[in-house]
Order: sequence, then structure tokens, then C-alpha cells
Amino acid sequence: MTRVIRSVRTMTAWSLALHREGVVIGVVPTMGALHDGHRSLIRRARLSCDAVVVSLFVNPSQFGPGEDFSRYPRPTRADAALCREEGVDVLFMPSREAVYPQGFQTTVTVRELARRWEGAKRPGHFDGVATVVTKLFGLVRPHVAFFGQKDFQQSVLVRRLVEDLNLGVRIVVCPTVRERDGLALSSRNRYLTPVQRRSAPVLHEALQAGRTAILRGIRFGSQIGRAMRGVIETDPKVTVDYLAVCDPDTLEPLPRVTKSAMLLGAVRLGRVRLIDNLLVRLDGR
Amino acid sequence: MTRVIRSVRTMTAWSLALHREGVVIGVVPTMGALHDGHRSLIRRARLSCDAVVVSLFVNPSQFGPGEDFSRYPRPTRADAALCREEGVDVLFMPSREAVYPQGFQTTVTVRELARRWEGAKRPGHFDGVATVVTKLFGLVRPHVAFFGQKDFQQSVLVRRLVEDLNLGVRIVVCPTVRERDGLALSSRNRYLTPVQRRSAPVLHEALQAGRTAILRGIRFGSQIGRAMRGVIETDPKVTVDYLAVCDPDTLEPLPRVTKSAMLLGAVRLGRVRLIDNLLVRLDGR
Repeated sequence: MTRVIRSVRTMTAWSLALHREGVVIGVVPTMGALHDGHRSLIRRARLSCDAVVVSLFVNPSQFGPGEDFSRYPRPTRADAALCREEGVDVLFMPSREAVYPQGFQTTVTVRELARRWEGAKRPGHFDGVATVVTKLFGLVRPHVAFFGQKDFQQSVLVRRLVEDLNLGVRIVVCPTVRERDGLALSSRNRYLTPVQRRSAPVLHEALQAGRTAILRGIRFGSQIGRAMRGVIETDPKVTVDYLAVCDPDTLEPLPRVTKSAMLLGAVRLGRVRLIDNLLVRLDGR
Repeated sequence: MTRVIRSVRTMTAWSLALHREGVVIGVVPTMGALHDGHRSLIRRARLSCDAVVVSLFVNPSQFGPGEDFSRYPRPTRADAALCREEGVDVLFMPSREAVYPQGFQTTVTVRELARRWEGAKRPGHFDGVATVVTKLFGLVRPHVAFFGQKDFQQSVLVRRLVEDLNLGVRIVVCPTVRERDGLALSSRNRYLTPVQRRSAPVLHEALQAGRTAILRGIRFGSQIGRAMRGVIETDPKVTVDYLAVCDPDTLEPLPRVTKSAMLLGAVRLGRVRLIDNLLVRLDGR
């Protein structure tokens, strides 16, 4: 039985009571429109935690002007049903007013990690993410939080944030779940027209081409980048926002791959923006 | 017996163990150079908490360039002795490297409240305060934190921060402790030469003149400000940084006093900078 909690006070009280019992709490932070990627996070949380909270909050402060905040999908009934199916203990759905009450004026900023890639394309996005995650951890008091690798830069930033502010939450990053044709699951995939949907896997294919290039001995970031870009350019419906070869820890561009590389990509299909990534290791791990 | 803890991990582990026992933890955040003002905070903490932590950390990020970080007094033995005298349970003295390890890049910003008065005179100061207080609360996990009214803007900002980030710490603001001539106790008073020390109470006198003006029926902020400034100007050794009549909640300037007013002042005596404040209530509370 999934309990739906909307009050921030009730949420914190629920958690503090469990803390006193020694119960380990896991949280899966989401903006709803849950799919099998979220499902895999919930299942992973169930494996290592005694109680699982799914938070559902479409956070306005991480959307830029002109982005899809107002049209972001909000299929709340289906989300609640998925949580029940997966044995989630609490579905936490605070209102916008409860999260950002009148007079709210505090921002958490992670500097270097928020500057590049998604941060460069979406100014203010990561301030919104860092602030709402800090708040969520204050409200839910989880021991562990589960994030998907699909939003890799976000997961690195949250790890940094937790360490820098001593929030004491363990961050677990779970593998990206994909459609059979390789497209990474995303709540935004439902914006795609059937024609766009057929083109969408090209992003994953481009990242795989980058990996293949590395595994075949190409080491220069610029060359690997060209290999990825070449794949996207085969489809005129898809435009590149960025394709990057970077250090998996700092996310700084790698001029030359030595041990491992994180391949990051963002593309646009009409108004829809998709991101994906692939980690390549040369050290056999 | 006061336990000295320098390790951040040990600090958090100590607190979490007490949490499981239902022990209420109070923290008195300090930069050391403890005086009777800190002593009163510790005593207040002992009254309402089961365990009292005094943190001692001279936080570099809240000092501006050219400020007194390097010469800030660090009488650690005397500080430890005061903590023992007052029955403090833990004196938490983390190193700079433990608080800001390599790669640290996160800042907490409170916007409007940090803009005026001390914030305007000391750019970046309140970002440093907000960030280190957030970290301290993460490390110590207190139920209650005790701040002195002398740093009134800081206490308002910390209250806002705790609410905005859902940190779940109760903030108690304790009355300013003064010398017999009215000078507010401050670690920086020890910088004063004997001649400057004799002039220093003029700040408190100016604030009292502001209060007297209000209680005599003067309501315009500008007039009250002039009354305060007139007192400072009697002493050529003292220069005004700011003297303000403001709303006690928002700290915005009050053109006209209706219910209550916070009188804020900052002055300079040579290289020494002193601040003080006085709350005036017309509503009889």
C-alpha cells in the first residue's frame, strides 16, 4: 500500500519516526511521468533500503524560460499506479507553494560542474536542480538517493553537492534503461512524433560510434567527436546541441583519452530535446 | 568533561548515535575568541538541550579580501577552558581542509536578505556564512542552534536559510551581552586601542538615541537616522558605515515606523569595524 503524502511536515515527521527505529530510507527523486527507467530505480532502492519514498515534483526553477515546464507531462494517476505496483512506501507530492513559499530566496550553486554541457545550454537549470535536491533531502531525510545515469551530469553534480554541503546522503547512480532500438527512456520521449521517434535512436548510435572509435584505438577527443557527429549528420531531422568526450569525474573535455571517457550528447528533433551518454573504460573495469 | 573533536566524520557519527537515543543536540556556532556573549549562548543551550556542541571554525569564505582573517584572534586554549567551565559536551574544531576539501565548489546564497547593510559593505560575506552554516548543520545535525542578536542580520538570514532549505534546525536568537558602558561584546573589541575603546560605546549610544526618538513620537526613518548620526558625529574618531531604521523581518529600510523597528549600526574606529543593533517595539510586546 503506497501512502500519498502531500504535506512537507508530514513527510519529515514520517521519516524522523523511522530514523528512530533504525529504518534505512531510500528516495527516488522524480518529476513524475514515470517510465521503466524510474521503475528500475525503485527496484534498486527496494533492494538496499527498508523503506522507499518516490518524490514527484515538477520543479519550476530548473526549467528555463521557453522550456517545457507548462506542457511537461503530469499523468498523476498512472504514476501513483506504478508506485503501488512496485511497492513504494510513500509517494511524496508536495505543492509548489509548500516547496517555494512566499519569501523564498535561497539558491544552492555548484560552480564548475554546472557550467558546461547542460548548464551552458540551459542557464540556471542546475541551480534549480541543486536547490531542490538539497530541499528534498531536508524534507525526506533519506539515507540513500537513486538517480539515473541518463542524466549523468546531474548525478555528478548531486554527488558533489552532497559532499560539499555534508548532507550525508549516499548517491547511487543506476544504468540507463533503453528501448529495444537503443533510445534512452525519458519522460520527454512522449513528445516525439512517430517520424521523430524513428530518428531518435541516432543519438545512442552516435555515442556507440564514439565508443567504437575509442576501442579501435582513436584517442584524440576531437576525432572521437567527429565520429559521433558524423552519425547524427546522416539524419537531417536531428541537430546537435553538443557531443562531448569528457572526464567522467570533472566533466571537463578530454583532449586525449587515456583511461576512461564519458561521452555526452544532446540533440534536438523539432522542439524536443534529448540527452544521452555512454561511459567508455580502457582500464578493463 | 569537554570532548574535542576535529574529524568531521567523528562529529557526525557522535551526533547520529545520540539521535538514535532521542538526545536533543544544541549547537553554538562560533569563530572562537570566546567571550561572555558566547558564554550566554552556551548557557542558554544547556537550558534547552541535552547535549551542547560548540563549533570553532574561523571561516575564510566569510572574510573579504583585506579583512581581518589572518589576524583574527585564535586563543584556542582559553576557548577550550571556557567550554570546559561551561560544561560543553563537544568542542568541534575541524580543519580548513576538512571543511573545504579539494574540489569544493558549492555555494549557498540567500538573496534579498544578504544584499543590504553588512552584505553591501562586505561583498560575499553572507554567501560564506550561509554556506558554512549549511555545512555545519549537516556535520553536527543539531536540533537547535543558538545565535547572538549582536549579529542580527546574520540571525535573520540563517532563519531564512533553514526554512528555505528545509534544514529542520530550530534557531534561537539570544540577547546581546554588553560591557557596563554599553559596548556590545565582540571578539573584535580586543583590536581596540585604549583610546578607541573609550570611544566605542558611542555606537550603542547612537542606537539608544534612535530608540529615544521613536519613543518620543518621531516616526520618520530619515529623522531617526539623523538623531543616531548626530551622536556618532560628536566623536571624530568614529566614522559611520551605516545607521539604519528597518523592518525587523525583511531588514528593508522603514520610511515610517508603525509597529516596530530594528535599528542597525556599523562604525569604524581606525581599522576596527564594530556593529550593533537595537529592537524598538511600539506595540508593547
